[in-house]
Amino acid sequence: MAKKKTNKKVTKKTTKKKATRKVGSAVDKKRDDLTKKKIESLATSIVTRSLSQKEPTFEIPTRSISNMKYNKKKRILEMGPNTQTRSLFNLGQSRKFMQSLLLAKGCRDLIDAEKTLSLRGMYYMGLHTIPGTKEKTFNDQGESDGILEDLEVSLDGLREELHVFAKKRGTMVGNITVVDNGDEINCRQMGSGGYAIPSICEPNVMQFKKCEADFILHVEKDTVWSRFNEDRFWEKHNCILTEGSGQPPRGVRRMLHRMHKELKLPVYCLLDCDPWGHYIYSVIKQGSINLAFESERMAIPDAKFLGIRSKDYDRLDLSDDVKIELNDRDITRAKQIAAYPWFEGKREWQREIKTMLNNGFKMEVESLITKDISYVTEEYVPARLKEGDFLD
Amino acid sequence: MAKKKTNKKVTKKTTKKKATRKVGSAVDKKRDDLTKKKIESLATSIVTRSLSQKEPTFEIPTRSISNMKYNKKKRILEMGPNTQTRSLFNLGQSRKFMQSLLLAKGCRDLIDAEKTLSLRGMYYMGLHTIPGTKEKTFNDQGESDGILEDLEVSLDGLREELHVFAKKRGTMVGNITVVDNGDEINCRQMGSGGYAIPSICEPNVMQFKKCEADFILHVEKDTVWSRFNEDRFWEKHNCILTEGSGQPPRGVRRMLHRMHKELKLPVYCLLDCDPWGHYIYSVIKQGSINLAFESERMAIPDAKFLGIRSKDYDRLDLSDDVKIELNDRDITRAKQIAAYPWFEGKREWQREIKTMLNNGFKMEVESLITKDISYVTEEYVPARLKEGDFLD
Repeated sequence: MAKKKTNKKVTKKTTKKKATRKVGSAVDKKRDDLTKKKIESLATSIVTRSLSQKEPTFEIPTRSISNMKYNKKKRILEMGPNTQTRSLFNLGQSRKFMQSLLLAKGCRDLIDAEKTLSLRGMYYMGLHTIPGTKEKTFNDQGESDGILEDLEVSLDGLREELHVFAKKRGTMVGNITVVDNGDEINCRQMGSGGYAIPSICEPNVMQFKKCEADFILHVEKDTVWSRFNEDRFWEKHNCILTEGSGQPPRGVRRMLHRMHKELKLPVYCLLDCDPWGHYIYSVIKQGSINLAFESERMAIPDAKFLGIRSKDYDRLDLSDDVKIELNDRDITRAKQIAAYPWFEGKREWQREIKTMLNNGFKMEVESLITKDISYVTEEYVPARLKEGDFLD
Repeated sequence: MAKKKTNKKVTKKTTKKKATRKVGSAVDKKRDDLTKKKIESLATSIVTRSLSQKEPTFEIPTRSISNMKYNKKKRILEMGPNTQTRSLFNLGQSRKFMQSLLLAKGCRDLIDAEKTLSLRGMYYMGLHTIPGTKEKTFNDQGESDGILEDLEVSLDGLREELHVFAKKRGTMVGNITVVDNGDEINCRQMGSGGYAIPSICEPNVMQFKKCEADFILHVEKDTVWSRFNEDRFWEKHNCILTEGSGQPPRGVRRMLHRMHKELKLPVYCLLDCDPWGHYIYSVIKQGSINLAFESERMAIPDAKFLGIRSKDYDRLDLSDDVKIELNDRDITRAKQIAAYPWFEGKREWQREIKTMLNNGFKMEVESLITKDISYVTEEYVPARLKEGDFLD
């Protein structure tokens, strides 16, 4: 476990940089070619069917909850084997058929142009009025977002491999140097602001360089992160400090996953003691129910839940002021989460959620301020790390 | 105006760093002492009144819209001279009286501890149950946020000077090096993620070092920012590229203000053609109506609105797909904004809003993707910069 180390003196390495850099220098040709081939083979199969007088169709894996399963061995959520047919001549499917091919073409164009685009951008890219009609290819971004998820699963490629990115959120500091799009970023010298974790953290864009850290501390909110950064927790405890502004976006999850896998760093999560905090943990650990197909490259089954724990109210002798009453929605959510297959068999998690329900209140990380401004950085987290008292 | 320059070769400077750094090394002793004195003189005056058998009261400037005025000469929103008395013995005011002194004490403690805290943190810091009662000092964070604003105006100190910070959002890249809490941050080498602009950008934490940039391009959304960063716009056009994830938070506004004032950089805003985009511009330029007392150190009266313009639909020969119909709320908001004193006398802004209302639709920056993925970075913004066609 994370031992306290003497702070190492870190000197910035002088790196000779190329005077100019080509746009798209971080493009992974090999991976891009593979993704393009997948898109083209989808198109080819449809053309072949059409030319042989068969109905133009293609199969996509079913993204409904009924087709998700928890892989107990891998300890991640996975998609089941069910697929559904999308057919041009089926009135209920023809619109989605058209949209899928439109966006598949859009992704191929992006790959060719060596550029990336936001989900909103993809919506506009595919948007046009069908000639001779007043019908638009997409009514709103919700439609194109769903189709992009279909494409991800059909092509078995992460959204990032299709050159599409989600909103950027989350920051990082700590004892690591990363190379992002050719720039060396020393996360030990990122001031009070930090390094903004990009939307796309794939190996072609992001490489890891020097890293002395023993572990990663992931906190839920940027305000808590600021407290830890101001107290230089990462320096004192030799770690990497990340935050995802609530439910961490894909970029942050992918970053955590890669640092965990490639650098063998344990991940400890400091989240609120409420169903939302438990759900965030569940997504980081097992994957998201909506996007189970990406778990393999996103989930961190070994992640640990460091706190806040429902027993903290008694254990830390907290005042009543930290209590936030559970509402009906919280109670329903807590019961749903307790029934998740990956929490179901875990006695400690069952006890955790039960205690919270019995308490009748939730608690936020910030509530520890009622003890002392820096109680969370100087007492709470160090004590948990020392004890090794985590939920798994 | 921003001329195209040859890209300069930038080499990272090797900086010797201190091996260890004291927590709070970025504390501005002089400023902190001044703020503490203000807090203490508030307390002293109350004690003095009490000891001389007078009712404990203090005056705070009125924060209502009726006490805001637009200073035509300075071109910013300012607070008027009206104040209101807060008295301990007035049943309707005693709670707020107590809360004000509680949070003032909290701020002094923060200054003494050389630490900063989030708004949420301040709420917890001041929260307790009044002995012998079941009454809490604060019912929710909304109460403490309001009191903190009262304190800001009463003490004539920015929230940041009281060591309190708001949520962090927004990122930056470009031809500038800043020093943040002692760390040298080269914004030319921030990869695809960028430098996360801190919540507190006061001179004690943030200093500017080398800057070759000719101007600042501020865009509304992180996804648009990513497009500009990926196309290395800031390198090609020698500028600084910022985004504020919608309405820019205080940190971003203060950063823009300081770079504009201290580095003499013009600020161009690329925002949506809708009332929300116009309002964002209004806040960046003249200050926010709710927090007019901070305009002097936040507002940028010389900021320019680069686009999207309502005439772009015709000028750029855009397709109907870019149109998003104005709803009733948009129309009401647009009329309100047109009536703002700082837009009222401006013929160009009146025409802009009128054209949008006549069009009956709004347009987003992302909609330019319907022309080409990089149309906005390669054609649209360069053309506007060349023409100098901005709204003021």
